[in-house]
Amino acid sequence: MNDTTFAVLGTGGIGRRTLEVSQHKDGLTPVAACDRHGVAMDFDGLDVDELLEATEGNIDSGPGTGESDGADASRDDLETDGGAVASSGVKQHGENAGVVASAQARPSEDPIQEIIDRGDAIDAVLLALPNYEHDFIPRVADRFVAGGYAGVLVDVLKRSRVIGMLDERTGAFEDAGITFVCGAGATPGFLTGAAALAAQSFVEVESVDIWWGVGLKSGYEDNRGTVREDIAHLPEYDIDTARTLSEDEIEAVIDEHDGVLEFDDMEHADDVLLERAGICDAEDVTVGGILDVERDEKPTTTTVSVTGTTFDGETGTNTFELDDATSMAANVNGPAIGYLKTAVCRNRAGEYGVFGPAELMPGF
Amino acid sequence: MNDTTFAVLGTGGIGRRTLEVSQHKDGLTPVAACDRHGVAMDFDGLDVDELLEATEGNIDSGPGTGESDGADASRDDLETDGGAVASSGVKQHGENAGVVASAQARPSEDPIQEIIDRGDAIDAVLLALPNYEHDFIPRVADRFVAGGYAGVLVDVLKRSRVIGMLDERTGAFEDAGITFVCGAGATPGFLTGAAALAAQSFVEVESVDIWWGVGLKSGYEDNRGTVREDIAHLPEYDIDTARTLSEDEIEAVIDEHDGVLEFDDMEHADDVLLERAGICDAEDVTVGGILDVERDEKPTTTTVSVTGTTFDGETGTNTFELDDATSMAANVNGPAIGYLKTAVCRNRAGEYGVFGPAELMPGF
Repeated sequence: MNDTTFAVLGTGGIGRRTLEVSQHKDGLTPVAACDRHGVAMDFDGLDVDELLEATEGNIDSGPGTGESDGADASRDDLETDGGAVASSGVKQHGENAGVVASAQARPSEDPIQEIIDRGDAIDAVLLALPNYEHDFIPRVADRFVAGGYAGVLVDVLKRSRVIGMLDERTGAFEDAGITFVCGAGATPGFLTGAAALAAQSFVEVESVDIWWGVGLKSGYEDNRGTVREDIAHLPEYDIDTARTLSEDEIEAVIDEHDGVLEFDDMEHADDVLLERAGICDAEDVTVGGILDVERDEKPTTTTVSVTGTTFDGETGTNTFELDDATSMAANVNGPAIGYLKTAVCRNRAGEYGVFGPAELMPGF
Repeated sequence: MNDTTFAVLGTGGIGRRTLEVSQHKDGLTPVAACDRHGVAMDFDGLDVDELLEATEGNIDSGPGTGESDGADASRDDLETDGGAVASSGVKQHGENAGVVASAQARPSEDPIQEIIDRGDAIDAVLLALPNYEHDFIPRVADRFVAGGYAGVLVDVLKRSRVIGMLDERTGAFEDAGITFVCGAGATPGFLTGAAALAAQSFVEVESVDIWWGVGLKSGYEDNRGTVREDIAHLPEYDIDTARTLSEDEIEAVIDEHDGVLEFDDMEHADDVLLERAGICDAEDVTVGGILDVERDEKPTTTTVSVTGTTFDGETGTNTFELDDATSMAANVNGPAIGYLKTAVCRNRAGEYGVFGPAELMPGF
């Protein structure tokens, strides 16, 4: 594969780990990284070690956001970027915070625009930004369209509503020559990819069951907002009622459940993304899992089960299991980088618009 | 994805099922099928139902080949195309055998050349031909190069030696604009793809263990040659000694093992293909399995286990299991078609040469 240059918007957990993991991959050169404080660019390749060391502990609370914004944080934020809702731990060098702590970076009034302006030399951009608002990622994409960018954009969200907003922009992306990949992280990215693969024994898929386990003891403090979002998935709540819960009420809900929240048949983008990829109907997909906020060990094994009928009329279930020792954080960046790289190939082949991860599996 | 036109060379098990399964996939139009008797072409799309019905039972023993050739048959031949070594069951209509039994086909002195001559309108060609000789597939590829074909060629073999022969042609493929995918069937195709996916939790893969089970009672008569090939993998045999075994000696070997042959640490292309894809070193891959020639039930569950270390220093094993009810035959065509489709994308993006299936997974 030809060499791929990429930029990372956001230097929180996802952004930093993507830079780190990219060093384990061939043919991938990080050329730019930014956060709201500034931008680092080097088209010969960033010095990732220096940048990571300088920005260690980088967590950006975002302008004017706080715990109340956390109600919008998705599981992927939790799994990939505690920075979405936390507000402490930014390492500062001198008077500059965030990426500017790196010797390769400089302050910028508009770091995203600086990256857009150099877009000709950037094959792909990972949007690892905190989700300040529902439409934050789509609006960032609008800026890339307006700036004449023609390449790949990748997010690691999981919310159906964002996918809908991106879909509305399909025409604009096509005109611009942008290939947008949504939800490329652990879930839905990794797990729907596994479902697409596991479906290959079958000519007809009857059901896809995605079941996850997350242990979140040490990450709990930084991810209250995500826990709030999870509470919205409990049968007795919805997004609106969860949003109005006070901190104490959230603690009370957690205590009621002895620290272990179980979710059945969650509304989750996996269904839409698997239908888009032609694997099965959205209604045949179920997603559930268990979140344990009092242990770091996974309370249950993350498993993808795909049941279908073979060409010769047999019915079976293929399964994909992640080892309990692999944290959700560990399951984000490999897939995200993989989807990014294959999206660059699609882009070079002239395929533009919005794609889910499972659509980027080998044409299954 | 844009519509993809494809041709199938060979109307035995693989070729027929690929045509059948392609009807379950979007954006895939079969436009040509041939065997040594003739060719069917329709650039508006073949009538697959008619063709399959007319050629039901098609098994081509090949010119001048017989049981002795079976020593070269690979597991994929077994799993996908009993036709490699069988010599009965060809349905004949009138005086024509093979594909010519279809109303869409006509006899041809050189059916492969006819397809090459129309190559401009064919995005991909699946080489589902019996392996008459070691270099048969590479020589067919040479004909496509010589004929000016610029597109995708896919085989479903598994032999390292063929991959080596194809590698020698990399320059010719690149000059011609050909993207060649080798081993796109159940194994190594499906299982190395699963390994590439399962590896995504890890920044360092320590080992990949591929373990297969095949029950071959009903298919045994048509697959003696493949059983011979398997015997070559037993510790007390090699390819040369297995080749010289008489039928009775083969029966004796099977009887000695009570009909169940177990293979540990087989020489198998999976290792080379996973190394090519950057997943791990070839030496870290082990392949084994159990073949039961007295039952159709799988004697063991086909499992891919990938052990590695995460970015945060944990070690774990992710696993992919195929349901015992999915026959090897059922596990060939979905992956083969998937790899074919993604190879067309690679080809359109200007990526030429030889690729293993795992290299076609999303840039992992």
